[in-house]
Amino acid sequence: MKLVSFADVKLEDVNVEGAVGTKIRWLISQKDDAPNFALRMFEVQPNGMTPFHSHAWEHEVFVLEGQGELVLAGEKKPFKRYDVIYVDPEIFHQFKNTGETVMKFLCIVPHEDAPKKKMREESSGNPFAAGTANNC
Amino acid sequence: MKLVSFADVKLEDVNVEGAVGTKIRWLISQKDDAPNFALRMFEVQPNGMTPFHSHAWEHEVFVLEGQGELVLAGEKKPFKRYDVIYVDPEIFHQFKNTGETVMKFLCIVPHEDAPKKKMREESSGNPFAAGTANNC
Repeated sequence: MKLVSFADVKLEDVNVEGAVGTKIRWLISQKDDAPNFALRMFEVQPNGMTPFHSHAWEHEVFVLEGQGELVLAGEKKPFKRYDVIYVDPEIFHQFKNTGETVMKFLCIVPHEDAPKKKMREESSGNPFAAGTANNC
Repeated sequence: MKLVSFADVKLEDVNVEGAVGTKIRWLISQKDDAPNFALRMFEVQPNGMTPFHSHAWEHEVFVLEGQGELVLAGEKKPFKRYDVIYVDPEIFHQFKNTGETVMKFLCIVPHEDAPKKKMREESSGNPFAAGTANNC
């Protein structure tokens, strides 16, 4: 159990190669005993960006403030406040701030060591996660 | 890959027993081929609430608008915009709107049929999900 303002979670530099003007807050992670996935907030300065890279895990993103551009291989897509973005595993991607204010977004990732499911076809057809039931 | 405004995702009634004035948008789910977890937005009217219940999965929550009260067994905790809430699996919980405007929050849940990890102690100590590395 945890209840805090995001502002009370430590703001840390992102020192990954290719990242510019980008900081992160680990809002909920394995440190909180969260068993499956981590909720992070990124804060990207004007002209800042996350690295253009790919990895084995997906991103589920919610844009809180500002505007930007999602760069994919051979494609650029603008996004704005309150947009929702899903990036599949293994896809090259980058988030760029194209505005004049700090861009903030939430990004949820599975724990690296959590067992993964890859394909919808493998699912049991559970109505909850499929979005056909209304669990809370 | 998906990029939409939250407002373009269908707003559905929550018809679970005990829910009052509560609607849901399944922003990202298994319908989008997301392999591990679902990102939903709840919209709760003034005096509305989610059911007081427990279940085997955790909640990772980010409050977007409004104010409310997190009801736990024998305990009530107020929350407000931009608060972050983690609810462990198996804990009785309820989200109540205590304000005069619509309360909106994001709530991420694992797919019901996804393999689960229960305890931090079981982890491999991966630095990414633990929040000690700064992956994007």
